[in-house]
Amino acid sequence: MSTVNTKVERPENALVDALMAFGVATIHEAQGWKGLLARHLRPIYAGIRVGGSALTVSVPPGDKWMVHVAIEQLHAGDILVVAPTSDGVDGYFGDVLATSAMAWGCRGLVMDAGVRDVRDLTAMGFPVWSKTIYAHRTVKETLGSVNVPAVCAGEYVCPGDIVLADDDGVGVVRYEEAMDVLSRGIDREQREERVRERLKNGELGPDIYAMRERLAANGLIYN
Amino acid sequence: MSTVNTKVERPENALVDALMAFGVATIHEAQGWKGLLARHLRPIYAGIRVGGSALTVSVPPGDKWMVHVAIEQLHAGDILVVAPTSDGVDGYFGDVLATSAMAWGCRGLVMDAGVRDVRDLTAMGFPVWSKTIYAHRTVKETLGSVNVPAVCAGEYVCPGDIVLADDDGVGVVRYEEAMDVLSRGIDREQREERVRERLKNGELGPDIYAMRERLAANGLIYN
Amino acid sequence: MSTVNTKVERPENALVDALMAFGVATIHEAQGWKGLLARHLRPIYAGIRVGGSALTVSVPPGDKWMVHVAIEQLHAGDILVVAPTSDGVDGYFGDVLATSAMAWGCRGLVMDAGVRDVRDLTAMGFPVWSKTIYAHRTVKETLGSVNVPAVCAGEYVCPGDIVLADDDGVGVVRYEEAMDVLSRGIDREQREERVRERLKNGELGPDIYAMRERLAANGLIYN
Amino acid sequence: MSTVNTKVERPENALVDALMAFGVATIHEAQGWKGLLARHLRPIYAGIRVGGSALTVSVPPGDKWMVHVAIEQLHAGDILVVAPTSDGVDGYFGDVLATSAMAWGCRGLVMDAGVRDVRDLTAMGFPVWSKTIYAHRTVKETLGSVNVPAVCAGEYVCPGDIVLADDDGVGVVRYEEAMDVLSRGIDREQREERVRERLKNGELGPDIYAMRERLAANGLIYN
Amino acid sequence: MSTVNTKVERPENALVDALMAFGVATIHEAQGWKGLLARHLRPIYAGIRVGGSALTVSVPPGDKWMVHVAIEQLHAGDILVVAPTSDGVDGYFGDVLATSAMAWGCRGLVMDAGVRDVRDLTAMGFPVWSKTIYAHRTVKETLGSVNVPAVCAGEYVCPGDIVLADDDGVGVVRYEEAMDVLSRGIDREQREERVRERLKNGELGPDIYAMRERLAANGLIYN
Amino acid sequence: MSTVNTKVERPENALVDALMAFGVATIHEAQGWKGLLARHLRPIYAGIRVGGSALTVSVPPGDKWMVHVAIEQLHAGDILVVAPTSDGVDGYFGDVLATSAMAWGCRGLVMDAGVRDVRDLTAMGFPVWSKTIYAHRTVKETLGSVNVPAVCAGEYVCPGDIVLADDDGVGVVRYEEAMDVLSRGIDREQREERVRERLKNGELGPDIYAMRERLAANGLIYN
Repeated sequence: MSTVNTKVERPENALVDALMAFGVATIHEAQGWKGLLARHLRPIYAGIRVGGSALTVSVPPGDKWMVHVAIEQLHAGDILVVAPTSDGVDGYFGDVLATSAMAWGCRGLVMDAGVRDVRDLTAMGFPVWSKTIYAHRTVKETLGSVNVPAVCAGEYVCPGDIVLADDDGVGVVRYEEAMDVLSRGIDREQREERVRERLKNGELGPDIYAMRERLAANGLIYN
Repeated sequence: MSTVNTKVERPENALVDALMAFGVATIHEAQGWKGLLARHLRPIYAGIRVGGSALTVSVPPGDKWMVHVAIEQLHAGDILVVAPTSDGVDGYFGDVLATSAMAWGCRGLVMDAGVRDVRDLTAMGFPVWSKTIYAHRTVKETLGSVNVPAVCAGEYVCPGDIVLADDDGVGVVRYEEAMDVLSRGIDREQREERVRERLKNGELGPDIYAMRERLAANGLIYN
Repeated sequence: MSTVNTKVERPENALVDALMAFGVATIHEAQGWKGLLARHLRPIYAGIRVGGSALTVSVPPGDKWMVHVAIEQLHAGDILVVAPTSDGVDGYFGDVLATSAMAWGCRGLVMDAGVRDVRDLTAMGFPVWSKTIYAHRTVKETLGSVNVPAVCAGEYVCPGDIVLADDDGVGVVRYEEAMDVLSRGIDREQREERVRERLKNGELGPDIYAMRERLAANGLIYN
Repeated sequence: MSTVNTKVERPENALVDALMAFGVATIHEAQGWKGLLARHLRPIYAGIRVGGSALTVSVPPGDKWMVHVAIEQLHAGDILVVAPTSDGVDGYFGDVLATSAMAWGCRGLVMDAGVRDVRDLTAMGFPVWSKTIYAHRTVKETLGSVNVPAVCAGEYVCPGDIVLADDDGVGVVRYEEAMDVLSRGIDREQREERVRERLKNGELGPDIYAMRERLAANGLIYN
Repeated sequence: MSTVNTKVERPENALVDALMAFGVATIHEAQGWKGLLARHLRPIYAGIRVGGSALTVSVPPGDKWMVHVAIEQLHAGDILVVAPTSDGVDGYFGDVLATSAMAWGCRGLVMDAGVRDVRDLTAMGFPVWSKTIYAHRTVKETLGSVNVPAVCAGEYVCPGDIVLADDDGVGVVRYEEAMDVLSRGIDREQREERVRERLKNGELGPDIYAMRERLAANGLIYN
Repeated sequence: MSTVNTKVERPENALVDALMAFGVATIHEAQGWKGLLARHLRPIYAGIRVGGSALTVSVPPGDKWMVHVAIEQLHAGDILVVAPTSDGVDGYFGDVLATSAMAWGCRGLVMDAGVRDVRDLTAMGFPVWSKTIYAHRTVKETLGSVNVPAVCAGEYVCPGDIVLADDDGVGVVRYEEAMDVLSRGIDREQREERVRERLKNGELGPDIYAMRERLAANGLIYN
């Protein structure tokens, strides 16, 4: 039952990059508020942003064997998405694995557990979103799977899904919905840009969004 | 029962700024160790410091409608203090609301829940202390109240109270006690400055604070 | 039962610095994956690294009296390791104590509770790893002990043990095992350096570590 | 600033008991979804239910001195509401204090921290809602206040407020709003009783509450 | 995008009951250690055990509208599996909804959030596994979906999957794998029964499982 | 470095039972408030109480191999104390291991992680204090040690230490201090019994403990 799926359909880089230009929060909104991973995933250093194609790795708790196995499946533009099958915090990933992943074109790591060697990862410019920073041991004893659908930080992620990550956290967009999400992201951004202009000039949300009548109907009282 | 209180007595900016000069920790001490909000409120970027007059917003869990309503109640020098009535982490506030709040003179935000668009908020220089960073959806369906006393992160905050926030967290000073707290803050700082000088020269706390007798009386043994 | 142990055998600085050169994660590995303090200990500002000799302080919950007592036991090169006897988050330590500790040669603080005055501590360049940042009051009412073995963040720390701390957290090495750990650290680093070179050139972990046979034997299937 | 307020206006027992007959959840609803303490307050044994007049005790973290002071302020029908000024878990209350409290007519305890002697408290039939069970030491060193407004588990509680507690948690009703809340509770219960009958017979919520049109208008699709 | 899927293929009751006879832990093992929901799901009263067909409900945070919608989709033998799209603790479900669910043949509830009216639910004998007990308000404002695949407490659950729940927590078995899992559960139970007999007689695991050689080979030393 | 210490000096049962008669909370007090394990250790069913000699097991995270190894080291009257070297929640222990442990005279289990088969363990009457209930897999791959000093739930426990556990949690008494602790427990209980009598008759703590003068000296004001 442990498998490595070597044939994954990946999104075009241009599509990924176009989505990433909007950022995690806007794309989350644009796709109807779905696909946002749990908030415990935080960047290990400030200011990183990256989008890519999900290379999923399902691992037993505390076992990093499959991460080693996953590296050669990387294509340029992929993001490693590592999902332990049980809650844990041990340190699956450090500078050695990052060196290997970068050599194979990996754009970053989403790790629903711990990472280590944070100073080195930062110096290498390898972007990581993790649940914690913890150098505790993991072993290489038990198999898992590579490029299978997996639940990572509360969201279902499939190989080849588009992963987006920035200061706001990590989001996932299904490959087949990406074009539609992008087009709605563009609309939303344009609308929002116009709103921002008006707000900057001191206009008010309740007027722009025409809320006043509904506020009164709901019984809001001004004293 | 949903109200917007439009008449709030606010502290003078000079008083707020004088208190802020001492920082959250010192003022917390100076007012007898009260008024410190829970430690889960953290700045979204390093090095921010701000003081202001509390504009309180009591909101239902996951509902940001009243934040929109609150904006036009802002006076220059106010800090938005948003308190959901139940424990939650969704992302109530992002760059659009910040644009509007800044246009109305808002100095910053204390949010006992999540915020989003952290990169934009940082670029805009809008100071935020929040419980988490999370882009998850909120709705605009249910009323709350603006400028009513509210419990935010475990402390009771009234409209017009003085809110202070820095790297150490968030504190609140009652308007009517502020002058007295300020005077005690000045005393404490002067005393502490003298102590710091002596400590820098290698003198010891147990001598400066005359603890040795009491330590011995309590039975401390040196081996 | 409250004692201050004034006679502690300390490691040589050269040994401490040699260990610190490898960092917390590598030394943790080199000593057989033991001696890593709980991951809730985090640096209060980015990029700090320090090693030293443990000066342990066992304190009652919420009581900082013994921290004052501990200062004069400091030798140049010591790190204060403060361990409350019960779970807590109050702010035991701020800029005044740091001023005193630095005057006595203290290299840093490991605090299994809260600290305050983070901006000042940062400006002073005093490295701190703590569980939280919180300015809440502590008292000076009840004795504890200085330089006794103590459990800090889940690890047993003895006076004179070598404490190492960086972005990855905090580790402890027994004085009597330090030479051996150092030598294994050197071996490991040399081995790892060679591996990193090969990985950088695109070689794969499963080949370098000769995993392929064992992966197949465990039933891994490539589709 | 440490005070004991000896003059508290208390609600009539009949009013308290009438409210308690509906339980915490129904009264919480009846008063417009306010006054529910945080969910970390849990009964220490199953099946307890109690209502009473709040005797509030504001205590420093880890210090039980004021609980001793509060006992003689108890009137028959009071519930002790103990609120530490900072987050903590130590064991403030055990069978000795319970013996004393029961002798003075106390109906139960709401403790936003830890309690101990759970077996004895259970045998004595003394109802307790607490954040945790933990025998860790508290001291008697620092004053607090008795019968002052206090924030307990995220809610503002005033002396003489009506406290209700059962398997669903702990709620508080302002004395001056109690009659109105009671009347709304009666209405709600009657309405709910009729609904329960219809549901028991297999009628459906979407029909009883006339939701179908709004569901369709919002775009719900049945496949 | 909000849909109610009215055509779900359900497992036969006999199959569900056969699996349930083994309990959550054994079935989890038998299916290769997958399908166990997060440990924060706990029974609201002791001793409950139930198996059924998953009727999944994906709900917005704090909104119970879709739970009302889901009831009429219940078939005898179903278990409601309610999965909010964001982390939350509000009280979605109480005795009124339970009355309706039971009238439609519902066997129990798995709720990745809070429930209320625990005393009533217990009296009614309606089995519930939830994340917390909390009476806080939910609204009926925003649509979700019924009988769609959903992530509940970290596991992917599809409509018609077999849900098993007891004192050990909650597990899920894919419909198409159920026969195979059952057969492996039977094998395992038989093997384990024989082992239990031998252990009861004082034989040792290291002998029964023939571990001694491997222990020695790994370097275990007896002093 | 993985060792099984086969020669442990154990306390006499009579001494253990005498200490246990006072319960965890009283003994914790009697030994000067030390030796109380973290509060996350809770009994898996209500009303259990047990004392015994610690048989410590240090295990790698998620690996139960050494628990199998530990069984044959059990003497009648021992309590298994299992301490993973890293934070975790997987289910190390169930009815099979309990069957074996009971056959070898084990009185109970203290597990700083998860257990499974709770219904069976309850039916067997095997007392367990654990951090959580979770059936997730553990492996048998990596060695640890048996009967070595270990940190369990924040306390240092040595083989042959006296472990006490009841509804209040878990405590540990050093073998060499046990007689002294017992004698102080007896004194304390006698004193407390006299106090309880007086409190039952309505006398007050502030009078019995002569607190009034110190309260006034500290500035307590009655209004």
